[in-house]
Amino acid sequence: MMDLLKPNERIDDLVCKNLKIIQNPKSYCFSIDAVLLSNFVTVKKGETVVDLGCGTGVISLLLSAKTPAKKIYGIEILDTVADMAERSVKLNGLEHKIEILSMDMKDAPQKLGRGKYDVVVSNPPFREIGTGKINPDPVKACAKHELFVNLEGVISAAGMLLKKGGRFFLIHRTRRLPDIFCYMKKHKIEPKKIKFVHSTFDSPPNMVLIESVKGGNPEMKVLPSLYIYKEKGVYSEQIMSVYGENAERQGLLNSGQ
Amino acid sequence: MMDLLKPNERIDDLVCKNLKIIQNPKSYCFSIDAVLLSNFVTVKKGETVVDLGCGTGVISLLLSAKTPAKKIYGIEILDTVADMAERSVKLNGLEHKIEILSMDMKDAPQKLGRGKYDVVVSNPPFREIGTGKINPDPVKACAKHELFVNLEGVISAAGMLLKKGGRFFLIHRTRRLPDIFCYMKKHKIEPKKIKFVHSTFDSPPNMVLIESVKGGNPEMKVLPSLYIYKEKGVYSEQIMSVYGENAERQGLLNSGQ
Repeated sequence: MMDLLKPNERIDDLVCKNLKIIQNPKSYCFSIDAVLLSNFVTVKKGETVVDLGCGTGVISLLLSAKTPAKKIYGIEILDTVADMAERSVKLNGLEHKIEILSMDMKDAPQKLGRGKYDVVVSNPPFREIGTGKINPDPVKACAKHELFVNLEGVISAAGMLLKKGGRFFLIHRTRRLPDIFCYMKKHKIEPKKIKFVHSTFDSPPNMVLIESVKGGNPEMKVLPSLYIYKEKGVYSEQIMSVYGENAERQGLLNSGQ
Repeated sequence: MMDLLKPNERIDDLVCKNLKIIQNPKSYCFSIDAVLLSNFVTVKKGETVVDLGCGTGVISLLLSAKTPAKKIYGIEILDTVADMAERSVKLNGLEHKIEILSMDMKDAPQKLGRGKYDVVVSNPPFREIGTGKINPDPVKACAKHELFVNLEGVISAAGMLLKKGGRFFLIHRTRRLPDIFCYMKKHKIEPKKIKFVHSTFDSPPNMVLIESVKGGNPEMKVLPSLYIYKEKGVYSEQIMSVYGENAERQGLLNSGQ
């Protein structure tokens, strides 16, 4: 098994149907955002999914276990990270379900085909260039900052990949919601459901989960909010019902980007 | 005093600094939406306000009492309704502060001047033509349905009236939030704060209050939600602190459009 791992890498338990993931704790480990998004996404039997900016593959892995997706394509621009994701796919024996492709997501519609996919998911970098310090670690930097793709690039790629009626699931910062809605409408994706994510019951929502539909009619619903903590350092029941206690013990819940 | 009133009209107490309003209970009376918006709006000393689609003038009247606005222009397309608003202004002796103008709000920027106003407020008709039955009463119909102006028309007028840095306060249906954001951005008004209004603690937000800034930077906050009822037929503390018990007794709180 150890030939699967490169220096500094370790195997973490995803606490979901025995799934494992290879991560490099010296570099970027997935955060709670990815797990929240995986739980928000709905995939029907036989549907094909594209995970834009899949990183180490956490969302693709979770969706392969939680949903009846027929096939999941994970798109990742950084070769070294795509390579880790691919080794995690092999480690779990999921080569028949998940294909990791190392490419710029902006090229995905041309290479994978336009208007063919039922579901697109993305947990993209949240920060615009010029806001906050770029992390010296390139993997962390790409996960946090819009170095290779910006918000419109992600939404545009999703719009081109989706078939009419296909769904795009996105997690992003609440503060960028107006831009998100406008880019979605520009690229013919209609926001249909949003779910705000608050750190605590008293805090304003920092994150938002969005379900949108390619070519959908304008009609949006606000779903009940999700609260991460019920008090300082104690996860809410909503979160614990998703994670179980193992997650906390194993330190899988990083604090987000 | 009675020469102020036309058939079927009555004088209602606005439960705010002794303000009165003339309404026709056989036709349209203002709803809680107008009061929520009035409480959401901030006006600084000396600022000039335009109330787009002012109806019987409830928002203009409340803002004249609650804020240090220098001048408020109430724009109303229906002559008979503008006339009622004007009589309410006289009834309260507020002619020096509030001017009611009977015109199409789309003409307001040309007639009042572009880029001159600090604050624009609007509680516009919510329903698109083709959704729901048009009320046979023309006043009710105009208050509910986009007969004379649609969402983009309202936002476009606000954008033209506002000076750079001026604020636009809008109340609307949550389900139209994506369109609202896109029209705002199209007309150079940046959504800055939103506050959802729920009927009860368990219900999804039906309405949303939006504060936006002409030429502002993209950066939006979600404020804590407002809940109308704490249980069936019992207003929440949030609402009672605004209205007091008189409002309920006097039946001023209609159930919205």
